[in-house]
Amino acid sequence: MSKDHPIPALFSDQYQLTMFQAYHTEGMTGPAVFELFARRLPPGRNYLVACGLEDVLDYLENLRFTADEIDYLRSLGRFTPEVLEILREFRFSGTVHAMPEGTVCFPNEPLLSIEAPLPEAQLIETAVLNLIHYQTLVASKGARVVAAAAGADVVDFGARRTHGRDAALACARALSIAGYVGTSNLEAGQRLGIPVVGTVAHSYIEAHPDEEQAFIRFAEHYPGTTLLVDTYDTLHAVQRIIALSHRLGERFKVGGIRLDSGDRATLARQSRSLLDAAGLTDVRIVASGNLDEYRVAALRAARAPIDVFGVGTAVSVVADGPSLEAAYKLVSYNGRDCGKLSPGKVSLPGPKQVYRIMEGNSAIGDVIARRDEAVMGEPLLHCVMRKGCRLPSASPGLSASRAHLAAGLDRLPARLQSLSDAAQPYPVAVSQALLAAQSRFQQLHSEDT
Amino acid sequence: MSKDHPIPALFSDQYQLTMFQAYHTEGMTGPAVFELFARRLPPGRNYLVACGLEDVLDYLENLRFTADEIDYLRSLGRFTPEVLEILREFRFSGTVHAMPEGTVCFPNEPLLSIEAPLPEAQLIETAVLNLIHYQTLVASKGARVVAAAAGADVVDFGARRTHGRDAALACARALSIAGYVGTSNLEAGQRLGIPVVGTVAHSYIEAHPDEEQAFIRFAEHYPGTTLLVDTYDTLHAVQRIIALSHRLGERFKVGGIRLDSGDRATLARQSRSLLDAAGLTDVRIVASGNLDEYRVAALRAARAPIDVFGVGTAVSVVADGPSLEAAYKLVSYNGRDCGKLSPGKVSLPGPKQVYRIMEGNSAIGDVIARRDEAVMGEPLLHCVMRKGCRLPSASPGLSASRAHLAAGLDRLPARLQSLSDAAQPYPVAVSQALLAAQSRFQQLHSEDT
Repeated sequence: MSKDHPIPALFSDQYQLTMFQAYHTEGMTGPAVFELFARRLPPGRNYLVACGLEDVLDYLENLRFTADEIDYLRSLGRFTPEVLEILREFRFSGTVHAMPEGTVCFPNEPLLSIEAPLPEAQLIETAVLNLIHYQTLVASKGARVVAAAAGADVVDFGARRTHGRDAALACARALSIAGYVGTSNLEAGQRLGIPVVGTVAHSYIEAHPDEEQAFIRFAEHYPGTTLLVDTYDTLHAVQRIIALSHRLGERFKVGGIRLDSGDRATLARQSRSLLDAAGLTDVRIVASGNLDEYRVAALRAARAPIDVFGVGTAVSVVADGPSLEAAYKLVSYNGRDCGKLSPGKVSLPGPKQVYRIMEGNSAIGDVIARRDEAVMGEPLLHCVMRKGCRLPSASPGLSASRAHLAAGLDRLPARLQSLSDAAQPYPVAVSQALLAAQSRFQQLHSEDT
Repeated sequence: MSKDHPIPALFSDQYQLTMFQAYHTEGMTGPAVFELFARRLPPGRNYLVACGLEDVLDYLENLRFTADEIDYLRSLGRFTPEVLEILREFRFSGTVHAMPEGTVCFPNEPLLSIEAPLPEAQLIETAVLNLIHYQTLVASKGARVVAAAAGADVVDFGARRTHGRDAALACARALSIAGYVGTSNLEAGQRLGIPVVGTVAHSYIEAHPDEEQAFIRFAEHYPGTTLLVDTYDTLHAVQRIIALSHRLGERFKVGGIRLDSGDRATLARQSRSLLDAAGLTDVRIVASGNLDEYRVAALRAARAPIDVFGVGTAVSVVADGPSLEAAYKLVSYNGRDCGKLSPGKVSLPGPKQVYRIMEGNSAIGDVIARRDEAVMGEPLLHCVMRKGCRLPSASPGLSASRAHLAAGLDRLPARLQSLSDAAQPYPVAVSQALLAAQSRFQQLHSEDT
């Protein structure tokens, strides 16, 4: 996610390089436009949140083939000395238009449009898709959790079960944009400046001869800490904390308790009553353990007095939809529209722009149009990189992206905030000019075949 | 996955470090044993495949805190100078027992047992869980795909939609152990020596004025290549390849065709007939596009003449079970059994060994026992690292792990090879001594609370 941790150039499917070589050999180095979009929403979703652009721009700016990588490619016996020399000198020189991170978006809308000489635009496909795909998935799910929490804080506990280490970092990042207030992942704290949270696990309690000693010692080390109360018996543990607070006073300051298992609605209510009755009204209640947007919403609906939700695996692996049918498709080469007619994957040919149609402060629908058309509405794709150089406006930072998402969600029809499929999905139209181009394209290629 | 690409020490949940500090402050540096296990099988599965150990051992051997990381921790204001100094000098000094990679295993069986001074064994939890979790998930699913392919080759096309870059590498690795014969991911080829595959995408066809020219040029560059035939109309494309073969002879050598969409059973049969009738019996048929073990099995059941399956997203994100309830739990401190009684998460206290009970060449059941018990059967956990040093036997290499898995699957009851839940799951018993220890532990802590 930075110059210090570049993504290796060999993080790529081999066919990107066999095509790269073929294009160079054939002199097919004219301008191409590729667009990245999702074909459909995951089940139960009403919108997506564009995310991962910053990492794409880092990748494109820093993409270099090392000597070791060139040697490996040579060892495959598939690449000519001329092409290996081109790769050794490779710099990305293209222009990128993109929806800013945190933009609310919908299927078939390009999130990213890359214009570059054909071999370059092809070469970067695998990494660009990979970087946008996961962060967009996670931000889209994370926004639902934040909505479900309805004002309570949400923090990311996902690091241990993400699919690998950089997923944990990307997850913390996407969830920060989605509105989470912290992460347990120290690497995300160091590299992205996200506030880190986390105090104590069951093992600490278990390693002590008994729970009381564990509580006393931990609160001594970290006054105001959050103690985990479900190792043996949750309500007993809460009563123990109350008793210790009274007995030890200033020497036992607890800021919160964490409920990690069991019926958290009931336990939160019972714990809150016990704490309040003992005058410990400032002690916050944290809930964690197998939470997702549905469980958070159920806890809120049950009026469980929970102040912080620690959400892990279900969101970080996007359990109910761990992949998005995201595609990176050639839409134009040398000014000529391109696309395919494969069953179920018919494409909208030509470079495009997406417009959001507003009525007062409400978004009433989007239009996918040809890039050169005039459409009334807010264009969603903006130039973020020109000739390989990132524009300053391309990197607004996490808090600006978070605010951008919050504003975008506010403008959406309220029905889309539901956690299940909205009866009436958000309207996304295809412009007349684009439909005409599509039908010209289909006709042309039906004749061809 | 090597010394050149160490996992940062800050890839960790903050609470590992707050506990680390507390343990040091309290002088609780006695020997602890943590075990890693899965609580249950993902739906429809009958076994798991242990995977990821090599990366855990790399991590443990190379775990160091850099000066920047220490500075970041200092900036948090939660850590004492003494503890920061301990972290600066940190080296993992523990002993690790583990199931070799490719071992068939079951819920509640420890895949890994780590014995180290308590703060050390705690510190490593997040990374160890993360590394084992994803590779075990993917290897477990990949083994099902290989079984479903029933002798046809399977290759990994997952890189573009894994959750991040190191997941793509880990995915290719786990699938190589599962029995895949190649990957599209060049980084996996370079770093792990896995054969790389992949020729051409739709965009190449689309960038050319027509399909015929694209086919001629690509086969010219790469004699014997595999051509993608579904960009416009699959059977037309196959007929085009046949006509070109006859017309151009030696100047148009094609080794395979790839079907990436549509009804691949029918298209494969029709393509095979056309190719065979034209004397192109050597041209292989590759199928790809939204495949998983169920679709591969259906294509085999329909006797589709497919030689190679290219399997991507569904396996690389483990679509039908993207997380495993994997846990890393303290089972002993200073020789005393530890565990917890949280609802639904009651643990088996004390260090354990797993035995596979054989009858002739068939595995008839496993027994989870206390480590010091004598049980007839093959012990599955072996020492792989002693006092921080990896044993030579710990890294047998990918092909040995692949053979180990194949042998393990051969010995399993045939009913477990089903792609759905076996009517009778594999028997995993808990030894009498372990049950007695568990009940002593529960009694002790019921008295405590």
